[in-house]
Amino acid sequence: MPEVLNLESTTLRKDLIDYSRNLERKNALASQFKFSDFIEKTKAGISLGQEEIFGFVNKVTGKEFPDIQTTAWLMAVRMRNDVKPLTIEETTNLTLAMAASGDILDLAEFEHVVDKHSSGGVGDKTTLVVGPIVATCGLTVAKMSGRGLGITGGTLDKMEAIPDRDGKVPGLNVRLTEDQFRKQAKDIGIVVTGQTGTMAPADGILYALRDITGTVDSIPLIAASIMSKKIASGATDLVLDVKVGKGAFMETEEEAFKLAETMVEIGIKAGINVVAEITNMDQPLGEAVGNALEVAEAIKTLKNGGPEDFRAHCIETASRMLMISGKAENMELATEIVMRTLDEGTALEKFRQMVIAQGGDGRVVDEPEKYLHVAKKYEVFYEGSEYLYFENVNAKKIGEAVRDLGGGRVKSKDEEIDRSVGMMIKAKVGKTLKPRDLLGCVYSDDPEKAQIAIQSLKNSLSFSREAVNIPKITRGTYPQVI
Amino acid sequence: MPEVLNLESTTLRKDLIDYSRNLERKNALASQFKFSDFIEKTKAGISLGQEEIFGFVNKVTGKEFPDIQTTAWLMAVRMRNDVKPLTIEETTNLTLAMAASGDILDLAEFEHVVDKHSSGGVGDKTTLVVGPIVATCGLTVAKMSGRGLGITGGTLDKMEAIPDRDGKVPGLNVRLTEDQFRKQAKDIGIVVTGQTGTMAPADGILYALRDITGTVDSIPLIAASIMSKKIASGATDLVLDVKVGKGAFMETEEEAFKLAETMVEIGIKAGINVVAEITNMDQPLGEAVGNALEVAEAIKTLKNGGPEDFRAHCIETASRMLMISGKAENMELATEIVMRTLDEGTALEKFRQMVIAQGGDGRVVDEPEKYLHVAKKYEVFYEGSEYLYFENVNAKKIGEAVRDLGGGRVKSKDEEIDRSVGMMIKAKVGKTLKPRDLLGCVYSDDPEKAQIAIQSLKNSLSFSREAVNIPKITRGTYPQVI
Repeated sequence: MPEVLNLESTTLRKDLIDYSRNLERKNALASQFKFSDFIEKTKAGISLGQEEIFGFVNKVTGKEFPDIQTTAWLMAVRMRNDVKPLTIEETTNLTLAMAASGDILDLAEFEHVVDKHSSGGVGDKTTLVVGPIVATCGLTVAKMSGRGLGITGGTLDKMEAIPDRDGKVPGLNVRLTEDQFRKQAKDIGIVVTGQTGTMAPADGILYALRDITGTVDSIPLIAASIMSKKIASGATDLVLDVKVGKGAFMETEEEAFKLAETMVEIGIKAGINVVAEITNMDQPLGEAVGNALEVAEAIKTLKNGGPEDFRAHCIETASRMLMISGKAENMELATEIVMRTLDEGTALEKFRQMVIAQGGDGRVVDEPEKYLHVAKKYEVFYEGSEYLYFENVNAKKIGEAVRDLGGGRVKSKDEEIDRSVGMMIKAKVGKTLKPRDLLGCVYSDDPEKAQIAIQSLKNSLSFSREAVNIPKITRGTYPQVI
Repeated sequence: MPEVLNLESTTLRKDLIDYSRNLERKNALASQFKFSDFIEKTKAGISLGQEEIFGFVNKVTGKEFPDIQTTAWLMAVRMRNDVKPLTIEETTNLTLAMAASGDILDLAEFEHVVDKHSSGGVGDKTTLVVGPIVATCGLTVAKMSGRGLGITGGTLDKMEAIPDRDGKVPGLNVRLTEDQFRKQAKDIGIVVTGQTGTMAPADGILYALRDITGTVDSIPLIAASIMSKKIASGATDLVLDVKVGKGAFMETEEEAFKLAETMVEIGIKAGINVVAEITNMDQPLGEAVGNALEVAEAIKTLKNGGPEDFRAHCIETASRMLMISGKAENMELATEIVMRTLDEGTALEKFRQMVIAQGGDGRVVDEPEKYLHVAKKYEVFYEGSEYLYFENVNAKKIGEAVRDLGGGRVKSKDEEIDRSVGMMIKAKVGKTLKPRDLLGCVYSDDPEKAQIAIQSLKNSLSFSREAVNIPKITRGTYPQVI
């Protein structure tokens, strides 16, 4: 069978960009595609060829293909989870075909374009801190980010919580054109925006079907969805943060490591410098959950403060980004460089440059409590009389509570949200608790919703009379050596 | 969970009819139904409850349910084929829910309503012979039949090949009202028509999706599809003929026996006297393939003649119908009764009564060659010089050739067909062949198509220099004791 792309080629990225623009070739593959062969092979676990995978994705992208046939294929793949999952080669072809279904950003003008991707968590404002850190170190952070859905936040929503020069929210401009995007990347080394152009439209179509047909929980499909967008957005160096635990999509470490491995192997085949870290998401990351509150916490962290768990996670992730981009020889050296950017305030200034470049009010960096819009605060205290340890702080329940305050979305990424609401969680697994301690705060201008959230905050906590170990955030990496 | 129907109840049939008419109950089950629970259980192989299966079928029948979700469920079920197929209990609930999705014919006025169902073959005109035989023996044959699709013929198409009193084709009326259907069953004991009323609409909806999404090949789904229609059509006694081989849907005996077992177990739970025979369909049954030609062969058989294999099959199936209906104590006695109806011509007269009652020209029975419309005949001779045995006569290739002559349908049961075309196959596995022997005849008024069919006929045959065993038609029954 003639190849679409040679996965061994050193010019794979360029070949993929060329293919993505070659409509004739794409249509030819679509018209050769035979669904009946494709579905029978998939059902039987027979190897799927590159041509037919590309043909399938082109058919799906063309929108004339019946959704029921696409769904049938997705479920056949899902049902092979425990029997015979798609191979790395098949998954890579699917990923590349999805990446090439729309525009692929050509960022060859920059030497290293470094990116990080989190599989989604509660209180995860890491990008706002590590982006400025690594840009300060001379790497280009030209990043496309997304919006939150369900209990998972999104970087764009957090950025928009930063007011514009007139004090209005949504503030920061996250709808940059490709020219604006390139220019800012060149000028200050950091830019974070929503998609420019039409990226991986096949992923959008497949995801909409998966979401309502029970076909989300397939590691090859999850990996292809994430990696297709990363490939399309032009990153050359990538740190993947695969969350595992109650507040994450992957609930077991086994699944999380498998997803990490799959994404890294796809990335390697696609010519990206990539490493994955598997991090815990049983409890929220840091204290702040809610868009404006999280920005404030990110700024605090960039000022060399912030909650210890979040600060440590940012330093580790940023160090890993320096490592894979060749800016440091080992993690010890990388960590030193990273900590220096926090200590000397250079990362904070890079953050301010980004805020100003994207139309925000730079003074937010100096006085976040003054310039960020935060709703009315309700303090929630421990009312018991026992001396205890926090045993669990359920990230999922807290994420749901903030979503229900209006800070997150229920069904669609088009829903408007309230960036001023949220929670500050003072509870941390392993921390001691004494009478009248502050458990956390709820922020809402709606007293009824606030009461519900207060109850949810309490319900999300459990306690122990005996000492509880403080859990490690990072559970491992793939590959292990980094 | 409260039950919809008690499968152990002695009044199950009546309860099912009552349920099928209780729209309020049906809507309540549909509105309780939660797809996300249902699909997750199906994916994980967790037992599906009666209420949710009925709720699902009601949702699907209501047509407001998304096809992609139905398809996702069908594929999840299909992919459990080799791992954990739906249980008999789940499959029975699915079958009953599908049967009750439309009208269920209440034929309680007749003591025994005996039916036979073939899973579809090439040259299978058995109903036209066994129906009159068992009606002659005092059983009621009130049968709903179907049309052919692909290589599989349908009894309705064959019946319509019998001209009406004006000599026109399609002739026999197979679109009887329910009143006409009941009256004819009462008057002469035999009636064969298309569906009266809306029967098992859920099956129609599911089948249309299965057909184009690769979800046909699932024994629980096949069994539910067949048995739901049989239950809805009111049969109390049923002989299932599960075809196996090159011209059948089940290609291996293992699959065929599994399908037989599944259908019989559903039938028993649904209160039907049922037995399945597993019969070979590597080569066509009898000689005639094509609607008018098959009617002629059926008449010949009713006149105590006909090809030996077809005659034997009819006698065996009819005997089994007498057995399960309690008209004979054992197969030997049943066979004697059946053979007498052929020898004495009573079955032939019953056939004539049916033809006349449904608006046909009764003289077809006396002079089929005069009254049946048959296209131009081309004889195909053996042109070799060797003395050989027939080793294979490929039923699938012959079925395809007759379909391509215009005698069958390609895509939809709405397509018009030509009832005058077909083939007579003189070749039989194990039969000897000498120079200038007739291999068969092709019937077509289109010389080009005839030439193609002649070639196909030749290509469907293979030969051996050594003696070849004559294959048994009946490979077994389920349960084995009958």
